[in-house]
Amino acid sequence: MGAPLDTAFLDALASGEPTPGGGGAAALMGAMGAALLSMVCHLTLGKKGYEAAEHEMRELLDEAETLRTALQAMVADDAAAFDRLMSAYRLPKASDEEKAYRGAAIQNGLKAATLAPLECARAAAGVIRLSARAVEHGNTHVISDVGVGVLAGWAALRSAALNVQINVPQLKDRTFADHALTEIAALLDECGRLTESVHARVTAKLG
Amino acid sequence: MGAPLDTAFLDALASGEPTPGGGGAAALMGAMGAALLSMVCHLTLGKKGYEAAEHEMRELLDEAETLRTALQAMVADDAAAFDRLMSAYRLPKASDEEKAYRGAAIQNGLKAATLAPLECARAAAGVIRLSARAVEHGNTHVISDVGVGVLAGWAALRSAALNVQINVPQLKDRTFADHALTEIAALLDECGRLTESVHARVTAKLG
Repeated sequence: MGAPLDTAFLDALASGEPTPGGGGAAALMGAMGAALLSMVCHLTLGKKGYEAAEHEMRELLDEAETLRTALQAMVADDAAAFDRLMSAYRLPKASDEEKAYRGAAIQNGLKAATLAPLECARAAAGVIRLSARAVEHGNTHVISDVGVGVLAGWAALRSAALNVQINVPQLKDRTFADHALTEIAALLDECGRLTESVHARVTAKLG
Repeated sequence: MGAPLDTAFLDALASGEPTPGGGGAAALMGAMGAALLSMVCHLTLGKKGYEAAEHEMRELLDEAETLRTALQAMVADDAAAFDRLMSAYRLPKASDEEKAYRGAAIQNGLKAATLAPLECARAAAGVIRLSARAVEHGNTHVISDVGVGVLAGWAALRSAALNVQINVPQLKDRTFADHALTEIAALLDECGRLTESVHARVTAKLG
């Protein structure tokens, strides 16, 4: 049955502390998607009838584990970026000099708090793209796990997108803001279609 | 920053052991959705401008925590049901008597392994329904967390549905099988629309 679930993270998520919050949850869902793809690779490698997929599965496993490690680290990165932004908002604003310093710190904090979910969205898109390969070559006995993997990746990507969108309106650097929104829109468009196509392939293989 | 992420569960998910797998991941995503709604309640209660939502938020918090506790327990329940089913498949099948005993054990195991994700799907639907109330009454500063909550609940529900669908074809009790599929289809239909409507409300409030 593997390791029992440690609920400390869920307790922290449910608490009145703002971190970990939705950004960390997005990264964790992405990591879960990557983990499920790794499991599918492990349960395909060395199995009779899947000899031809051996090389592809080894490559997939490497890429899934790289994405998982990155996404796991993003749980803490997201909280750190949020906490830094909150500290900037709490800076003194009595004098003009203080106001200018605080304003610049908030803008820097907003950029970091936008880049964190953007990076999460890119990694979640990576999980979704891997799932499209896993559904073709993975062990059909665990094909539903590819399905759960792609759904976790898609929830992570859409969640990360919300965390980009919440920061963008306050950004003064509109070039940066527009680039972030354009990239998110492209990822959502590509991966929305890819997710539904992988999901449909999984469902067809289940029937 | 709250509790650091314990990666033991993710390591177990990624390993070559079939449990925890997609069923456990579904329950965990549902629990994350419930946890985020609890956080939104905590960050709304006692806040200026949200006095009128006090009673609703207390009720919502209670219901979210009940669902979270149930979904957290389902992570282990799902693995137990799967492991029991695998044990049934490993029973001896030399004599006719053994074959009959094994066949009955497999059918019982399949029913339990269908009921586990069905229960997860019901709880995930509960998270989605709560998010529809949270988006109307929750603190708008953390409205993106309601969005992540509903997306986590929706990923949990669709994932649980795949885990129902993978077992149903082998069930000999077709009345039971049809009831399970009908219930899942109804939950997917209701909650698919509800999720997109909550997501749209969140996005509108972000802009």
